[in-house]
This record gives sequence, structure tokens and C-alpha cells, in this order.
Amino acid sequence: MLAGVLDADLGIRSRVRHEVGGLSRPELIDVIVATVEEARRGVADEPVAVGIGVPATFDHAKGRVVRSTHLPLIDLAIEDLLAERLGLPVVADNDATCAAIAEHRAGAAVGVLNAVVLTLGTGIGAGLVMDGEVRRGAHGAAGELGHLPVEPDGLNCGPGCPGRGCLETRVSGPALEREAERVAIARPQSELAKAAANGPLRGARVVELAHDGDLAALEALATVGHWLGTGLVAIANLLDPEMVVVGGGLAAAGDLILEPARAVLRERAMPPAALEMEIIPAKFGADAGLIGASLLARDRAARDRAR
Amino acid sequence: MLAGVLDADLGIRSRVRHEVGGLSRPELIDVIVATVEEARRGVADEPVAVGIGVPATFDHAKGRVVRSTHLPLIDLAIEDLLAERLGLPVVADNDATCAAIAEHRAGAAVGVLNAVVLTLGTGIGAGLVMDGEVRRGAHGAAGELGHLPVEPDGLNCGPGCPGRGCLETRVSGPALEREAERVAIARPQSELAKAAANGPLRGARVVELAHDGDLAALEALATVGHWLGTGLVAIANLLDPEMVVVGGGLAAAGDLILEPARAVLRERAMPPAALEMEIIPAKFGADAGLIGASLLARDRAARDRAR
Repeated sequence: MLAGVLDADLGIRSRVRHEVGGLSRPELIDVIVATVEEARRGVADEPVAVGIGVPATFDHAKGRVVRSTHLPLIDLAIEDLLAERLGLPVVADNDATCAAIAEHRAGAAVGVLNAVVLTLGTGIGAGLVMDGEVRRGAHGAAGELGHLPVEPDGLNCGPGCPGRGCLETRVSGPALEREAERVAIARPQSELAKAAANGPLRGARVVELAHDGDLAALEALATVGHWLGTGLVAIANLLDPEMVVVGGGLAAAGDLILEPARAVLRERAMPPAALEMEIIPAKFGADAGLIGASLLARDRAARDRAR
Repeated sequence: MLAGVLDADLGIRSRVRHEVGGLSRPELIDVIVATVEEARRGVADEPVAVGIGVPATFDHAKGRVVRSTHLPLIDLAIEDLLAERLGLPVVADNDATCAAIAEHRAGAAVGVLNAVVLTLGTGIGAGLVMDGEVRRGAHGAAGELGHLPVEPDGLNCGPGCPGRGCLETRVSGPALEREAERVAIARPQSELAKAAANGPLRGARVVELAHDGDLAALEALATVGHWLGTGLVAIANLLDPEMVVVGGGLAAAGDLILEPARAVLRERAMPPAALEMEIIPAKFGADAGLIGASLLARDRAARDRAR
């Protein structure tokens, strides 16, 4: 869990980080409250409101978590509960939606009417901007691009998703690691193979080796990029946005992953989106969720003042 | 081309139909004008405006056709040109978008905030309603669900689409006919095989045989329904609508195609949409485009009056 107090220019002051994996619900809530209080103590000014991005399906209308794979938050009215504990207005939203709000209102997609903001990490998060607003769907579950079925005989997707052949079985940190292990075996003379001999290949290490020019590491990234391109074809044909913004840990690979993805887009999607849809790196990186949550908190404070 | 004059209750009066395949652009425009004039002569009242749904990518902001596979309309400012010829205000939109507007404002999805309206015929058309409005994307090209990549080694898609393994290579009239030919060979004793021996199998005949209980025809429809289910998984996970409305020629198969599709949705999509997303037949069938275009024409006439 990452917390921060943001100033008027979206500068992050008083950044605090705590591990929240494996906690029970009461413990998790205590840690959230303690982390926010710690961040709050780090600045002289009092915050006006708290925004929180949760890695869960969040029903914006009801203010409740409706689905949560990694944290014990299901059916929690998280806004009311935290507002009570913190003594401040609290607004919550899905973390990928927060990232999309940050990039759309203050980052790489400012002024763009239709955009998709991707966060490529252990999975794929996406926020959908259509006609100038983030669209959340009926339950706040829209934008699960990682669970697009792209391969009929693909891998089972894993915890929280009953699908198989989902895009994130091909495009994610774990997918890159699987692909790198496969290439390392096929190319035993490569730097990638040498790294694999010393223990499990981490995605970040594969990206480093690729930046150093190792052909095997480049091949693994190109394969992941190719599959990302399939996701871009789906986005172009189904949503027709002006722009796709790509952030998250895997985005560190930059054009090593984005160029193969763009090539598939240009070749396979329908014109005019195939040629005109821009694929650009995110502005805020790992801070996008924090910044988007803060923007939602500002909106909430402004609405409260207007009452 | 189907034309009609609609009364205040959306009743279709003076219905006219003309073939427009194979015409040059000037001939096509002449036929459009003549068809509208013929429909207009069939009623005593003068229409207030004309709406037209075109099977092409239509840029709503610019009033121009930006992509057209089947008709010679590319780059045509169709609204201005027809308004000049007809002496009435003209508003155009994509035909699947018109169908979505009809079902959303007066049909099966009235009052639903998020809905996808599918037209299953020679291809798949789709209109996307999110947060209460039809969303068209940057170029009016959103909703090309037929061109979702679902099969990496699938068939080349064909005219107008450079993709392969697109959903409509598995879900469409031609896809049903291919599947039925395959099943007919595998089941030579079936009614389907007997029908296939008398010439190419038409989709409508396959649906008839299935309604009569032929197991081979049922199998072909179930396979198409299974692939439609893959499309529903993509819709649920990416857009999270309350409802998917299914119309078009293939919808005549009803639950023979929708039940296998629902089964895949329930099994493979992520909750809560997997369980809660409704799949229902369209209200207006083949008239949905006409009714949606008429609703757009009414909007246009009301705006003109308000000026």
C-alpha cells in the first residue's frame, strides 16, 4: 500500500509505503488507517479529503467493493468505514480507474476524448475514457482488458478469473517470465540462459538484458509485445480511441515491447484506427493511482463545499 | 436499401425496398434519393427530417463516411449531399449504431444505462451504450465486435478487415454455413447432410432443421453459440453492461444459439457480470436500423425547431 499527501500541483509529499499482503480484514483496515495517518502527520497542512484506489471491483454508485481477489474487502462499504475512522471525507475507486483519471486529467491523455489507459504489471489493468469521461460499467468492472479471451486453448487464467486464454496469460510480468524461461532453454548460449541458470528469471532482469542487447531477451519481449498488439487490435476495433496510454512495471521495456505491439496493430486492426490510434507511455508511472485517487478526493471536497 | 416513413408512435408506414449492390456512387445516390421520395409519396403528411443508417464507418462530428467496404461512399459528406437533393434536414449514422439507438430508446434496452446491441447477420454489428448514451469512438468506428481477435491461427477475415481469427469468422451467417457443411460431412445420416447434398446450405435452412430437431443442425448452431459466448465474455470483462441485446438474421435461432452462448458466459467471464449480465432478443428485428435512424431524424428536427 502506497500513501501520500498531494499538494495543489499534484506534487507528492510525505510518501508512505506498507505491506498489506496476507492480512485479515480488521488488520488490513487498521494498516490502511495507520498508513494514511502516518502520511498525514508528514505535512503541516490538513488534507481536505482522502481518495483510495483499491485493486478490486468497486461499485461507484453504491460505494461498496463487489469483488476482490487479492484483499479481504468483498462487500465492504469502504468509504463510510474509513471516513468514520479518519474523520475526513473518503472516496474510493478501482486502482486502474484512478490511474486512468490521473493520465486523462493531468498526464499523457489530457484533452483526449477517447483513451484507454493500461497498467501492465502482474496483470493488466485498464481504464476506459469515452466521450471525455471514465466509463466504469454496471458494477465498476469495465476495463478488465487482461481477461479478454484471445486464445481458445490457452492457459487457465488463475485466481479470481474462471477464464482461459485470457490476454494477461500472455501479457504480464509472469507471462514475460514464462516466455523468457522458454526462450532461455531454446537459446542456451544467450545471456538470458545464463541468468536463468542462476535462479528464476524476474521480468525486470529480462528487460535489463534486452536493453543490453541480448537477442534472447529481446525475443521474449517481442513475443509479449506481439500479444499486446492483439490487445491493441481489440481496443481499436471495439472502442476506437484516439490514444492508448501504457504504464506499469512492464512499460519499463518501452519500445522493446511497444514497437512489436504497434506493428500488429497497424497490420491487423481496421482502418482508420489501425493507423491513427497512438500508443504512448504513461506520464505518472507507479504514482498514477495515487494521483488519480487524489483528484477524486479533490472533486469530493469541492462537492462538499458546494453544498 | 430499406426506407420507410415512421409515425409518431414509430409505426412504419410506406415501406420501400431496393437493391443497391454493385452500383457506382452517382447511381447509388440516385437510388437513395428515389427510394426516399417513393416512401415519402406513400403518406399524406410531409416528413420533418430524414435519418439514414449506413453500413460504413461514419464520423458523426464531421458528417462524413470515413470507411466503407460494401458501398462506394468513402469520404462522402452524405448528410449535406442528401439534404440538398431531398430538401429536408438529413442526419446519418452507422447502421449498427442506429439499431442500438432504437433498442435503447424504444426497444429491449429502454432505461438500461449500459448495454451492447448486437446485430448478427453476414457479419456482427454492435452499438455500445455506456452511461446512458451511445458511444461512437474517435472515428465512429467503435463497436466492431465482429473484428475482435479470438483465435490466433484463425481464418483471414476478408474484405475490409486485415485481421485473422476475428469473431465473425466464427459467428455470422457464413460462419454458420461453414460449420454446417463440416458437421454434414461428419454426420452423413442427418437431415443436415441430406439438405447439403441438394446444394449449398443456407443459414436460414440450418436454423429450420435445428428447430425441427435435427441433431447435426443443432450441433452446428451450438458451435456458433459457443463462439458467440466468447464474444460475450469479452463484452462482460471489458464493458460490464447490464444487458446484451441480440438481433439480426442469426437471432432467428433464438435459444438454440443463445443458450450455448450464455453457458460460456456464466462459466468463463468474471463475476459479477458473468452471472448478472442479461442476454435478450432484440425487439425490433430487421427494422431496428430504420427506427433508430428515424429517432435521430426526430432529434435533428427538434434541434432545428429550437434554434
